[in-house]
Amino acid sequence: MRQYPKPLNRLINEFSKLPGIGGKTAQRLAFHVLSLSTPEVESLANAIRDAKQNLRYCSVCGNLTDQDPCSICSDPQRDPKVICVVESPQDVLAMERIREFNGRYHVLHGTISPVEGIGPGDINLKSLIVRLQKEPEVEEVIIATNPNIEGEATAMYISRLLKPSGIRVTRIAHGIPVGGDLEYADEVTLLKAMEGRREI
Amino acid sequence: MRQYPKPLNRLINEFSKLPGIGGKTAQRLAFHVLSLSTPEVESLANAIRDAKQNLRYCSVCGNLTDQDPCSICSDPQRDPKVICVVESPQDVLAMERIREFNGRYHVLHGTISPVEGIGPGDINLKSLIVRLQKEPEVEEVIIATNPNIEGEATAMYISRLLKPSGIRVTRIAHGIPVGGDLEYADEVTLLKAMEGRREI
Repeated sequence: MRQYPKPLNRLINEFSKLPGIGGKTAQRLAFHVLSLSTPEVESLANAIRDAKQNLRYCSVCGNLTDQDPCSICSDPQRDPKVICVVESPQDVLAMERIREFNGRYHVLHGTISPVEGIGPGDINLKSLIVRLQKEPEVEEVIIATNPNIEGEATAMYISRLLKPSGIRVTRIAHGIPVGGDLEYADEVTLLKAMEGRREI
Repeated sequence: MRQYPKPLNRLINEFSKLPGIGGKTAQRLAFHVLSLSTPEVESLANAIRDAKQNLRYCSVCGNLTDQDPCSICSDPQRDPKVICVVESPQDVLAMERIREFNGRYHVLHGTISPVEGIGPGDINLKSLIVRLQKEPEVEEVIIATNPNIEGEATAMYISRLLKPSGIRVTRIAHGIPVGGDLEYADEVTLLKAMEGRREI
């Protein structure tokens, strides 16, 4: 036995393919699985399989969902006049957590990144244009991509793309995070904070 | 949507039960699973299920195996006169890696630890005594438990237990690890290294 039995090796190998899981962690996880009861193991294996089988992207907004259209797009309580454009389903959840925004979303699943060869056609952008034609009630598109180079470039691109339509395009504010420290803020953030100053 | 769709939440929840996996990592792993192809997901889910279903403990030595007796116990090339007692299947693999030991093993699956309420009856020790009665050819039992309080206590306990049988009981050496630095060695290790000195 220079190696573990095959089923164990296979499991360690599968775990080590996951992001951020190295060889040692994969081994610890595999031994943990062996220490679980059979129902617990079934529950884990089924959760993995079910998530893949039952989740799809909403045909309207591109968000992850187990029903189509998703619960937000099909909610009559949500304001149909505002669409918030985000990069990922994780960002939708982050926005929902603030319990402030009551419009709907559009999930790009990425950003335009010429360096990585990702063009406007490689993200979920075309469907936004089609959607805006189908939904004339939309008055504002808030672009909430991340405040980095790719996010800014994507925001600029979408802004120019929508200009002819007359829809109001806005960008979320950049600035010093609440609880942050001016002294340690980077120059670009500080600059954005100054630019975005408002009367109080 | 204050939360992700159910199947995704369930998967995040399952992942976060694993040791060393926090909420954020569980979320990253779950999204990674969604990004995999269906065959890849099946492969992961099956590996988890198969490992649990097909692995058992060897009825002779207690090591993890997919056949019983395990490949080491059933190997006629291995020396039946020496048994190395270790705490875990991981330790068997560590011993096998040095390609020096050609005897067989006995896996305790733990150590005696009065603090945690683990007594001699809670580890795979009784089977060692039964085994030694069935295998009169055994001449030496090498105790390779870890050099910590529990490991030492377990080694002492086994040593006393086997004394009447007349079988030679040995303990692996403690000392400065190769490549280690005297200056940074703790006192106990240094003391053990002095006690274990040999003529050169």
